[in-house]
Amino acid sequence: MTRVTVWNEFVHERENDAVAEIYPDGIHGTVAAALDDRGFETRTATLDDPEHGLTEDVLDDTDVLTWWGHTAHDAVDDAVVARVRERVLDGMGLLVLHSGHYSKIFRELMGTTCDLKWREAGEKERLWVVEPGHPIADGLDECVELPEAEMYGERFDVPAPDSLVFTSWFEGGEVFRSGCCYRRGAGRIFYFRPGHETYPIYHDETIQRVLANACEWAAPGDDPPEPTFGNAAPLESIDGDGSER
Amino acid sequence: MTRVTVWNEFVHERENDAVAEIYPDGIHGTVAAALDDRGFETRTATLDDPEHGLTEDVLDDTDVLTWWGHTAHDAVDDAVVARVRERVLDGMGLLVLHSGHYSKIFRELMGTTCDLKWREAGEKERLWVVEPGHPIADGLDECVELPEAEMYGERFDVPAPDSLVFTSWFEGGEVFRSGCCYRRGAGRIFYFRPGHETYPIYHDETIQRVLANACEWAAPGDDPPEPTFGNAAPLESIDGDGSER
Amino acid sequence: MTRVTVWNEFVHERENDAVAEIYPDGIHGTVAAALDDRGFETRTATLDDPEHGLTEDVLDDTDVLTWWGHTAHDAVDDAVVARVRERVLDGMGLLVLHSGHYSKIFRELMGTTCDLKWREAGEKERLWVVEPGHPIADGLDECVELPEAEMYGERFDVPAPDSLVFTSWFEGGEVFRSGCCYRRGAGRIFYFRPGHETYPIYHDETIQRVLANACEWAAPGDDPPEPTFGNAAPLESIDGDGSER
Amino acid sequence: MTRVTVWNEFVHERENDAVAEIYPDGIHGTVAAALDDRGFETRTATLDDPEHGLTEDVLDDTDVLTWWGHTAHDAVDDAVVARVRERVLDGMGLLVLHSGHYSKIFRELMGTTCDLKWREAGEKERLWVVEPGHPIADGLDECVELPEAEMYGERFDVPAPDSLVFTSWFEGGEVFRSGCCYRRGAGRIFYFRPGHETYPIYHDETIQRVLANACEWAAPGDDPPEPTFGNAAPLESIDGDGSER
Repeated sequence: MTRVTVWNEFVHERENDAVAEIYPDGIHGTVAAALDDRGFETRTATLDDPEHGLTEDVLDDTDVLTWWGHTAHDAVDDAVVARVRERVLDGMGLLVLHSGHYSKIFRELMGTTCDLKWREAGEKERLWVVEPGHPIADGLDECVELPEAEMYGERFDVPAPDSLVFTSWFEGGEVFRSGCCYRRGAGRIFYFRPGHETYPIYHDETIQRVLANACEWAAPGDDPPEPTFGNAAPLESIDGDGSER
Repeated sequence: MTRVTVWNEFVHERENDAVAEIYPDGIHGTVAAALDDRGFETRTATLDDPEHGLTEDVLDDTDVLTWWGHTAHDAVDDAVVARVRERVLDGMGLLVLHSGHYSKIFRELMGTTCDLKWREAGEKERLWVVEPGHPIADGLDECVELPEAEMYGERFDVPAPDSLVFTSWFEGGEVFRSGCCYRRGAGRIFYFRPGHETYPIYHDETIQRVLANACEWAAPGDDPPEPTFGNAAPLESIDGDGSER
Repeated sequence: MTRVTVWNEFVHERENDAVAEIYPDGIHGTVAAALDDRGFETRTATLDDPEHGLTEDVLDDTDVLTWWGHTAHDAVDDAVVARVRERVLDGMGLLVLHSGHYSKIFRELMGTTCDLKWREAGEKERLWVVEPGHPIADGLDECVELPEAEMYGERFDVPAPDSLVFTSWFEGGEVFRSGCCYRRGAGRIFYFRPGHETYPIYHDETIQRVLANACEWAAPGDDPPEPTFGNAAPLESIDGDGSER
Repeated sequence: MTRVTVWNEFVHERENDAVAEIYPDGIHGTVAAALDDRGFETRTATLDDPEHGLTEDVLDDTDVLTWWGHTAHDAVDDAVVARVRERVLDGMGLLVLHSGHYSKIFRELMGTTCDLKWREAGEKERLWVVEPGHPIADGLDECVELPEAEMYGERFDVPAPDSLVFTSWFEGGEVFRSGCCYRRGAGRIFYFRPGHETYPIYHDETIQRVLANACEWAAPGDDPPEPTFGNAAPLESIDGDGSER
């Protein structure tokens, strides 16, 4: 059973009534319930928890971490970011959601600014599946329509994804690479665009299906190879120095 | 349960005693037994079967097709190749094994010559895992050593793989991209280098693990998106022509 | 000086007055003049020429071939397609323009159906630059707007491009990967979406700049490595058989 | 004329007589002379220079920066690293040479550990060209042999390169992805493996040719698109809010 830790900064929901109405249990509550319903073992963690709820013990019990933040990226402790990054490179899956594009953890793993265009105008978004054979698209139609969304537009300053699953069309005239898969170290990372705090997007069944697919895709294998690093004895004799395996 | 059809041209084993001794049930028999043991529902098909054993009915029951051929690529009927290709593009997984690099089906799906260097000298090969987080490498050490192998060397004239899982070192001085993942249409293709008819490589437990991992990776989803093609009505009104959804 | 051969099926311009008005010298005439102005040595070739104008001699003098076809893909001789394909794999650059997505040469090099959605409604298109550091985007703004275009929509059934330079937004609600770079064999291929026969798109300065950039990008090097294929003597001694370099 | 700044920590050459004998003008001196001979406008900069020689003014005059460091990565000031990183993301080319894999600048741009295996045993290395159509391989044979090299072995913990140009074979039994191209932001990065301080590898004509090719490849365009980021007004009217371009 895949173990998912759902992280949320959990600020907007406590400060803004409109957001609280949409996500009374926090965005993390909604996401965790959706994953729980789909057979994942879930727990949640938030910014205000000690060590943001991401202690070594919690991470030991985590196959996939989902990350939602927006207004408080800078409040995330660098030591926790370093810890999470190390776990991802060691194989833990990571789902970065919507405004998480600007989180410390995503920017450090990508190495770029992760900047983009944005607009809050309640406009229509269509996510087109550009890679229908990808497991993250399983169970979807060829296009997912969201009646009201915040716009994110290209240029999205990230490395070209290893696989691009979704590309968004926006009513106001922009496009966006909305579902981006990356391998970093032994870990798998999926960036998924939809999900602003003022729209009920994480209540959408199709979006929930994508989250579940992505958690399954990002989960590490049972017994991955463990590469060794550093000084290495030769495996074959080297001419002239007589070294042997 | 993932349904695998193991295809083999099955020529060497019937014509060459040394090969028959290594693969008394044919290469297909060994591969199918290995997959069967690991929980796949398997069947076999060979060149001499009517329609090479790859009828519409058989393909209807196939999630993943594995392909081994060497001496009789030209004897494979173009109509069967076209049928298999269509299935792959519709989502059926395909594992291309060793000398299958030169099969009609692989060359048509790649679009390149798929040529390479080769040498039969019973030399040592080491497959290094270059992408330890990939599911096809699960359960392996960081390096797989084969004491005796046919050499395949670069330049391997294929498109750059979407993911490169293994790179081989050969005793005689060459390297090779030995585990190459591709998406084509809705299908997933894995080329896996090891496996000459005169070496017992498909009896190797580690190699069998890779084959099983690859079948799992290549299997289609339960309910993939079905893109539509051709003339499409607009989804939004277009200025001046008044078209509506 | 880079030598470009501009190929056009040259059918619409002779059969349809509206097209002839936009492209009185044929699409090939307009494209060749634009490249000529930008410092390329150009020639043209069309379907009705002997061997479609793509003789061995012409190809010997060609660094980059541009391809426009629409209504007569099937009339292109298979032998010429095979000849062009071999040249591309040997290093000749190839620009595939607009409806050329469905040409024999592109489909054979891609290995997929190259199918897509389309609509002729004179709608607005915006090509967003998603890879601003790519040489094909040099000299452009971050977005190229075309007031009237034929729509091409995803799913575009091609292999994931090695580099994706442009993504299009369409007024009617679709998106498209409009600038796709591929390496195949030693050759570089660029698919560029804009360019329907009923719109004056190839007269657009910005589109012409992209064509010129792409020709420069696709041209082969002065002295590329020439891989050898087939049976290869070992470069190192192999234990037990005493073979030497 | 492409302007290259050749950076070197310049420590080994001043502390170790054997290194000084091979590189009497420092590794930077040898690399800069080689590039100068091949038509680049070069300058050098080293660790001990004020701001490591990488002032804003110097970077304003730099199209491509080459980076060699080994023993003093930690001595590089974080502010200078941040400055260089920003320039790369804005379009400056970066060549990371050999032990530069562990530099701050490369690790920050990659987002991974960039760790690897290594061994100093004076063993033979062969760099096989796996992408013969890539401009960085122009002018080479299909294989470059170095009689004595430090070994670097996989797993090399970097993101999968956008293009893989070279793969190395080592006498002692390992392989390595030795020529890796990346785009990050608007910049192009090339990691090139050869070049230990105790071997005269940068005096090798073929290696110098690769460096020159890579500088040409990595140089920014004359007039690249400048994406805008942040809040964006809609380009199309959005239903219900009446916003206009």
